[in-house]
Amino acid sequence: MDRPPSDIEALIELMARLPGLGPRSARRAVLRMIKKRGQLLQPLSEAMVKVAATARECVNCGNVGTSELCAICADPRRETGEICVVEDVADLWAMERSQVFKGRYHVLGGTLSALDAVGPDELRIPRLVDRAKTEEAREVILALNATIDGQTTAHYIAGELEALGVRVTSLAQGVPIGGELDYLDDGTITAALNARKSL
Amino acid sequence: MDRPPSDIEALIELMARLPGLGPRSARRAVLRMIKKRGQLLQPLSEAMVKVAATARECVNCGNVGTSELCAICADPRRETGEICVVEDVADLWAMERSQVFKGRYHVLGGTLSALDAVGPDELRIPRLVDRAKTEEAREVILALNATIDGQTTAHYIAGELEALGVRVTSLAQGVPIGGELDYLDDGTITAALNARKSL
Repeated sequence: MDRPPSDIEALIELMARLPGLGPRSARRAVLRMIKKRGQLLQPLSEAMVKVAATARECVNCGNVGTSELCAICADPRRETGEICVVEDVADLWAMERSQVFKGRYHVLGGTLSALDAVGPDELRIPRLVDRAKTEEAREVILALNATIDGQTTAHYIAGELEALGVRVTSLAQGVPIGGELDYLDDGTITAALNARKSL
Repeated sequence: MDRPPSDIEALIELMARLPGLGPRSARRAVLRMIKKRGQLLQPLSEAMVKVAATARECVNCGNVGTSELCAICADPRRETGEICVVEDVADLWAMERSQVFKGRYHVLGGTLSALDAVGPDELRIPRLVDRAKTEEAREVILALNATIDGQTTAHYIAGELEALGVRVTSLAQGVPIGGELDYLDDGTITAALNARKSL
């Protein structure tokens, strides 16, 4: 049997390890790259070399940046006394796209999980407690996913911060904007009803 | 708003152009790469640089290889007088995985399509006719997808090869191995019934 040349096969195997890609879509992606060498493969390989050389984790918050402090932690205008805690960098970017939060972030890098043996020390939680003290935070906003693990983590963090007297809040739960009741799960409807507000 | 650093953003944009990835999955893929720099980002960037430098189209059949002639066209044992015509390289790899075809291939690079203005000259069809002559092919096997465009292309190629006196065949259509009738579409059942064979 003739297999793809070994360089190409190695590339396919690596691509297949990315989230959202399997062996078949990795093959398709690599063939598309080779077909569009000038527009896709060359620029991609250059972009990757660049990112591999420059990308690094912010020592303060865990965001991805190109220097020791990320752009947000380095910006004095974002020192508002509010720290928004997110699970990972993709969530931070989602928050930033909404353009509503003006403070700084703290990226946990996951959630507490007994099954996967992820404890507080794996999650930069001690660092968050430190920051809440040294940055004299007024409020810590827990923007964690509304999953079991996310909520467990939120409760644990709330407990850790209790002694500091900092205000701990979390994102509201309810009907998403544009959401239709008929398509929502029971849990969301229950949460929205319990948190109902007067008009 | 703080956006991802521009190098990372450029990488995300390029990744989002790959088939099967959108902006969201490209962001996830890039974050995973950065997280696993040693196991993923570094090897990926090296593999891409290598492939960008070495991968090229076989001048004879259109397969992807690392030299002017691909491994199959360069192998004299595969000069069997049979040419298997496929739409693209992924189909060639699929045929090779089945290990049943021992001859050579011809990669069209697509199908005829009036809508997308793809004519015979875009598809290496003239080159196929040349090859059928110069390689004194006994048989051209059309392994094109069972789509409208694939079948139109098959008919066109059969017409072009008619004058050469070469035998032109196509893959059988019918019930896939392991297939259950209840899950098959009407077209497949009709084709399988029409092509029924005595036991």
